[in-house]
Amino acid sequence: MALASRARALLPGARSWGAVLARVTAQRAMSHRVVVETDAAAGVAVMKFRNPPVNSLSLEMVTELVINLEKLENDKTVRGLIFTSESPGVFSSGLNLLDMYGRNPAHYAEYWKAVQELWLRLYQCPMVTVATINGACPAGGCLISMTCDYRVMADNPKYTIGLNETQLGIVAPFWFKDTLVNTIGYRASEISLQLGLLYPPAEALRVGIVDKVVPEDQVHSAALAVMAQWLAIPDHARQLTKAMLRKPTVDNLVRQRDADIQQFVSFISRDSIQKGLQMYLQMLKQKKA
Amino acid sequence: MALASRARALLPGARSWGAVLARVTAQRAMSHRVVVETDAAAGVAVMKFRNPPVNSLSLEMVTELVINLEKLENDKTVRGLIFTSESPGVFSSGLNLLDMYGRNPAHYAEYWKAVQELWLRLYQCPMVTVATINGACPAGGCLISMTCDYRVMADNPKYTIGLNETQLGIVAPFWFKDTLVNTIGYRASEISLQLGLLYPPAEALRVGIVDKVVPEDQVHSAALAVMAQWLAIPDHARQLTKAMLRKPTVDNLVRQRDADIQQFVSFISRDSIQKGLQMYLQMLKQKKA
Amino acid sequence: MALASRARALLPGARSWGAVLARVTAQRAMSHRVVVETDAAAGVAVMKFRNPPVNSLSLEMVTELVINLEKLENDKTVRGLIFTSESPGVFSSGLNLLDMYGRNPAHYAEYWKAVQELWLRLYQCPMVTVATINGACPAGGCLISMTCDYRVMADNPKYTIGLNETQLGIVAPFWFKDTLVNTIGYRASEISLQLGLLYPPAEALRVGIVDKVVPEDQVHSAALAVMAQWLAIPDHARQLTKAMLRKPTVDNLVRQRDADIQQFVSFISRDSIQKGLQMYLQMLKQKKA
Repeated sequence: MALASRARALLPGARSWGAVLARVTAQRAMSHRVVVETDAAAGVAVMKFRNPPVNSLSLEMVTELVINLEKLENDKTVRGLIFTSESPGVFSSGLNLLDMYGRNPAHYAEYWKAVQELWLRLYQCPMVTVATINGACPAGGCLISMTCDYRVMADNPKYTIGLNETQLGIVAPFWFKDTLVNTIGYRASEISLQLGLLYPPAEALRVGIVDKVVPEDQVHSAALAVMAQWLAIPDHARQLTKAMLRKPTVDNLVRQRDADIQQFVSFISRDSIQKGLQMYLQMLKQKKA
Repeated sequence: MALASRARALLPGARSWGAVLARVTAQRAMSHRVVVETDAAAGVAVMKFRNPPVNSLSLEMVTELVINLEKLENDKTVRGLIFTSESPGVFSSGLNLLDMYGRNPAHYAEYWKAVQELWLRLYQCPMVTVATINGACPAGGCLISMTCDYRVMADNPKYTIGLNETQLGIVAPFWFKDTLVNTIGYRASEISLQLGLLYPPAEALRVGIVDKVVPEDQVHSAALAVMAQWLAIPDHARQLTKAMLRKPTVDNLVRQRDADIQQFVSFISRDSIQKGLQMYLQMLKQKKA
Repeated sequence: MALASRARALLPGARSWGAVLARVTAQRAMSHRVVVETDAAAGVAVMKFRNPPVNSLSLEMVTELVINLEKLENDKTVRGLIFTSESPGVFSSGLNLLDMYGRNPAHYAEYWKAVQELWLRLYQCPMVTVATINGACPAGGCLISMTCDYRVMADNPKYTIGLNETQLGIVAPFWFKDTLVNTIGYRASEISLQLGLLYPPAEALRVGIVDKVVPEDQVHSAALAVMAQWLAIPDHARQLTKAMLRKPTVDNLVRQRDADIQQFVSFISRDSIQKGLQMYLQMLKQKKA
């Protein structure tokens, strides 16, 4: 069971996930799927994904991400936030298929609400956010990257990035689509999303799904250099500008959040979709074996 | 008189153009302005324009296109559809000026409704659609191409593509504009649409109004290769993704379809516009002579 | 006090700023911050900014621009309008900080309404408009340029163009943002607007915030050549096309014009913003000294 949902069950009056966490941490140890290192002098935090083997965005992982984001938003010394991975070769494999296969509708609904919450926080994050893409970055991993203000990708041809949902027989929801259109434009999104394209670094740069490609050993220093450039701008002016730019896209989900959950639950519960996911999961198992 | 409108007059209760066709074909021979060849094994149909000399989109031609589209949509063995021309050097010259000049308002309204219907079917087509642009492709010809999922153009400098309406003193309607903006972006559309630009292949590729330019003798094989790539994606995921991407643009016309017809009829009936078209038609006649 | 506001005070029933001007010009001399030269044979007017030292968009300057625009719109012999500067090295420094610092709310409101009026007229201008950017072009100067149908920039690395508001700790309003997004797209606007980027000519061309860069001594002839190309299109078709393309962006401001004024007044009146502007003005003074 997810930390936050367990916490909400324990503390039904609690509204803020951070407040929940504060009370809960005394009771149990964190699972540490997410590690945050803060450089207070620079005002920059680095959030590292540590959910082996592939940083899958399980309900627990999504919940930890949300809780850590809320904590950092409330820490006035932190102005910038860098996302990266501690799992070799993988930034994040995206949404966790095991949270979308063989569960009941209540679980699907809880999972989807958490994924929405993560996107809403990331896309409206008042901090400067930079993705240091040091590994494979499909689907939900790509979504996290695209919410950032800037994307630096390691120049390793094994790493690819994109919303490849259709290749798995599923459909990216409209707010994934909106985020992609905002990043690479409408026409490139038509091709990218329908074909479920995964771009290696050079192509990713050309289509604009990442902003910079650097040698793999320079990806962290490059992200820090970008961060320094963005932190040179007064926070309040930058934050208001970011909010103004992203508000219509955010409102688009907020307006129809419940309907989106219902649609996800209904779609993912279909026999044909469950069968497709089963086949895909079996294929993954055979690959490993 | 158009086939379908004649059919509707004969069979007033009929809602579906395909159903109309099915009952009517027993009574009269098709005019065959459109030829459809289906490769059932590959699941791909090729729709060839054969309305000499320039594949003008007359009311009859538009009606045949709509009827054939509806038939293919109902044929579950067909997953992909390629458009091309059998008229040498011309993909399609676009809307038929003779349906917009010297007729009465009822005719203009009937014509415009049919053109709307064609666009609505093409833009929402559940099949993968590829335009094989093997000739000149102005105005309405460009519109048909832009509704496709992918555009392959023959590398012949005599062929150009674009919405050149302003050059004729007329105005592309908002849904032509929306389709162009979706294809090449807003700013390029401002220049393209105001100046009525016709792009030769290299420029067309650069501005993004086509996706691929190949030597003329390879245009059909290139289209088939593209089709194979798109058919590798599960249909239902691709179809839902396409519908999600295009729905806002479709809704924009559906919401104001009648108003758009009235505006077209009112605009095209103006003395100044009729005089402009007359001059243009005379110029075309002198060119031929 | 601004010419038009003085005029409106004198003639409260007057609706049209042009009508006001016509009655007022008998009473006082024009200040000539804007000089208009018309080539009646070519149908082209050139509007020259002459508000030394930096063509700051003071309330007086904005008012004169609006009045001159209205006069030209009513002059049926003028089909095209070129904007350029007579101040060496500066196209326009943008909004006048002295109209935004140390004044009362009524002044801020009057100023903002005039700036809105200027943008509304420029963005909907029925004439072909070309910006000849022969000097520095930040903030409001960039906004004026972006309303034009085409932008030609002199290839001088000292000249830069962009919406650099965040660098000053202030925020470009949503209609500045909309104009930028229409010009360079959403993603480039996210970077450009948050960082307050000022682009030198080559970068300005690459990002698409200008359309052509030419040697400085050819900037005027290049603008005339562009104008000739655009004037080859029938006016009424081009005007209807322009209006159709820009209407949603215009409507976006028209719908919330009063709210936008109130938001500007409230924002600019904040102590923190006033203090920031004071520091910036002192820095400018020290630079001069």
